[in-house]
Amino acid sequence: MKSVLMIGQSNMAGRGFIDEVPMICNERIQMLRNGRWQMMTEPINYDRPVSGVGLAGSFAAMWCMENEEDKIGLIPCAEGGSSLDDWAVDKTFFKHAVSQTKFAMQDSELIGILWHQGENDSYGGSYQTYYEKLHVIVEALRKKLNAPEVPFIIGGLGDFLGKSGFGLNCIEYELVNHELQKFASEQKNSYFVTAEELTSNPDGIHMNAISQRKFGIRYYEAFSKRNNVLSPMENEMELLDICINRPYTKGEKMYLEMMKFALGKITYEKFMEKLGTMSN
Amino acid sequence: MKSVLMIGQSNMAGRGFIDEVPMICNERIQMLRNGRWQMMTEPINYDRPVSGVGLAGSFAAMWCMENEEDKIGLIPCAEGGSSLDDWAVDKTFFKHAVSQTKFAMQDSELIGILWHQGENDSYGGSYQTYYEKLHVIVEALRKKLNAPEVPFIIGGLGDFLGKSGFGLNCIEYELVNHELQKFASEQKNSYFVTAEELTSNPDGIHMNAISQRKFGIRYYEAFSKRNNVLSPMENEMELLDICINRPYTKGEKMYLEMMKFALGKITYEKFMEKLGTMSN
Repeated sequence: MKSVLMIGQSNMAGRGFIDEVPMICNERIQMLRNGRWQMMTEPINYDRPVSGVGLAGSFAAMWCMENEEDKIGLIPCAEGGSSLDDWAVDKTFFKHAVSQTKFAMQDSELIGILWHQGENDSYGGSYQTYYEKLHVIVEALRKKLNAPEVPFIIGGLGDFLGKSGFGLNCIEYELVNHELQKFASEQKNSYFVTAEELTSNPDGIHMNAISQRKFGIRYYEAFSKRNNVLSPMENEMELLDICINRPYTKGEKMYLEMMKFALGKITYEKFMEKLGTMSN
Repeated sequence: MKSVLMIGQSNMAGRGFIDEVPMICNERIQMLRNGRWQMMTEPINYDRPVSGVGLAGSFAAMWCMENEEDKIGLIPCAEGGSSLDDWAVDKTFFKHAVSQTKFAMQDSELIGILWHQGENDSYGGSYQTYYEKLHVIVEALRKKLNAPEVPFIIGGLGDFLGKSGFGLNCIEYELVNHELQKFASEQKNSYFVTAEELTSNPDGIHMNAISQRKFGIRYYEAFSKRNNVLSPMENEMELLDICINRPYTKGEKMYLEMMKFALGKITYEKFMEKLGTMSN
């Protein structure tokens, strides 16, 4: 089993509206719950009641398509509204992410760290010290996790920022993007993923569900090719379709029926009947 | 700030349907997220996609009513389907609960541990070793957390078990209840809370939302009086009404409006207008 750590702020946690995109149901995608693995369902990173679709879902779906025999586990540690300083190595989020990843590493190999952060540092000149602070965090994280070469994938900030709603104050987002991209180009095993053409929820700060799905495809491209993704990919929608709209396995079908039953949407008789059909 | 640890299986995590009971919105109730406190919203213990209303919400609401100056933080560590053996001191759930509680104790005092577990030990004679195994767990937990006297509140299993759906196999639940009650009567700082008259979702195993709310009231009664609650309380519905249906503070009103905006249910203009009204 392989695993991937999710850290950063709300657009890593995911705020896309669940009902706007097709569900990802894949028994080879797991998520960490109470230190152990459970089958993934969105929201993966439940830091807030408004948690929803993030980029990790389609990242993992792409990974599964290209790695047919293994499983991937997502370690959700992103925190809405967190600043870069909140992620300093002596602070709680860093320590929490290390502790969660250590639980995950009991039975998985950490193969990547996904980072998306910066909205909260897009004003007041924070970009000036962003590079150096991020450098300290990433190196400490790799050291603590005993994973000195683990790829660090950095997503850019969306062009919808600085314009409306909760994004209005993020006027220096391009300067932060410049630092993020510079970091990826200079630091080893670090890759930048553009947020170009991605759009937001009506709140002006959170990527909408379909943009998160596309972003995940780009993150996977950077991860798998060990390369920066500096412009949108032409076949994003096609890749999404292929990796998500696949025929369900028996285990996945059972999982879906079990959820319907647990939520009171089908009777026990109907549920047992469905299970019976599957075992034939 | 005070805090309370939630451990056990699904009926501690909570599977009550959210829309069946009035929402609890109280800025003095917090929940642990990424090692830090956030304002509580249900589901608190997001171990599964079917997570919903649990007993901790009304427990905390009652606590707030009787402790007007302080805040209470909930530490969600319950895991659906976990057996007593899964909670052994060398296993992940125990270690995870200790690690989460230590994050919580950075800025709070642990004042209670809420336990609900046993459905998964209600067949095959597991009740015979339940007492001794639980004893080892509780003592180790208190020791690890450096809280030797912290109250341990134990809820009983529901009488709906052993009858239908997913509860069908739990035929020895009364024998487990006997052990739980015996434990509380013999061990110091341990209290038993009956599940008598509580009812389940259609799945036959998970307490429904209103039962969870009542259960929380009973847990609080046991906690605050340091006494067993051996039969349903006459004024449960009344207490629920008083502790939940209170006038919202300005902070709570803002939180609710912010959530509506983030979910795309009101426009930015409407949101700003609402905020303006509040600051008058």
